[in-house]
Amino acid sequence: MKIKITLLVIVTGLLYGFTKFESSGESKIEEGMIKVAIFYPNGEGNTFDMDYYTNNHMPMAADLFGDKLKAMVIDKGLGGGAPDSPAPYVAVGYFYFPDMATCQTQMGTHSEALRADVPNYTNIQPVLQISEVVSAD
Amino acid sequence: MKIKITLLVIVTGLLYGFTKFESSGESKIEEGMIKVAIFYPNGEGNTFDMDYYTNNHMPMAADLFGDKLKAMVIDKGLGGGAPDSPAPYVAVGYFYFPDMATCQTQMGTHSEALRADVPNYTNIQPVLQISEVVSAD
Repeated sequence: MKIKITLLVIVTGLLYGFTKFESSGESKIEEGMIKVAIFYPNGEGNTFDMDYYTNNHMPMAADLFGDKLKAMVIDKGLGGGAPDSPAPYVAVGYFYFPDMATCQTQMGTHSEALRADVPNYTNIQPVLQISEVVSAD
Repeated sequence: MKIKITLLVIVTGLLYGFTKFESSGESKIEEGMIKVAIFYPNGEGNTFDMDYYTNNHMPMAADLFGDKLKAMVIDKGLGGGAPDSPAPYVAVGYFYFPDMATCQTQMGTHSEALRADVPNYTNIQPVLQISEVVSAD
C-alpha cells in the first residue's frame, strides 16, 4: 500500500512536471497574431506582486490556455516618456493567440478563473486591450 | 554623362535597398530586453493613418536605430475588455533594445526626428512607457 501511494505521487509529479508551463526566455511573435494586453495602471496606493504574477498567475494562465497560446510576455514598467517620470503601467501581460476565434474561445472559457486570481497579486483594476499584430520585425 | 547619372541612380538605389529596413513578419523577443512602447489613445476626433505609420514612420525609426534595434512590433487596437467596447489604444508601437544604455542613447539621439514625423500620421499625443521584458515564452 505504501509503495502504491509513493508510486502514485511520483507518477503524478512527473506528469505535472511534463505538462506544467516552463519559461523558455524568448517569444516568437508573428504578424497576424491576436494579442491580449492586460495593463496594470500605476498610481498612489497601487500594489503589485511581480513575483506572484510571473511565477504563479501567468504560468496558471499558460496552463489553462495550453497549446492554444502561441506566446506570452510580461513587461515590468520602468519609466515614462519624460525623464524621471513614472511608468504609466506597473506591469503589462500579453497573451498571443493564432486568430480571433481561438482568442475569444480561450478568453471566454478561462477569464473567470484568471480574474478570480487577480486579488492574490494586486489591488489594481486591470485594463484590457485586444489587438492584431500588424507588423513584427 | 547620361550613363554616369544612370549608374549613380542604380548604385544609390541598390545601396538604399540593402540598407533599408525590410519587414520580416516575425520578432524574437528575449527576457531582459528593454522595450519602448508608444501608445496612441483612442478618443473622439482622434485620427491615425495606419498605412503611413507601418510603411513610413516605423521603417524610418528602424533605419535610424539600425542594428541597435533588436525587434519592432506594431499593434492595431481591435477592442477592449467588455464586449463591443473600443480599444483603449488605436495603435501601439514597440521598439526592443538589448539594454537600457543602448535604449537611452538611441532614443536620445533620434526621438526628435521621430517626434517631428508624428503630425504626418496622427493628431494624437502619444504616451510612452519604458519597460523591461521580465518574462518571454
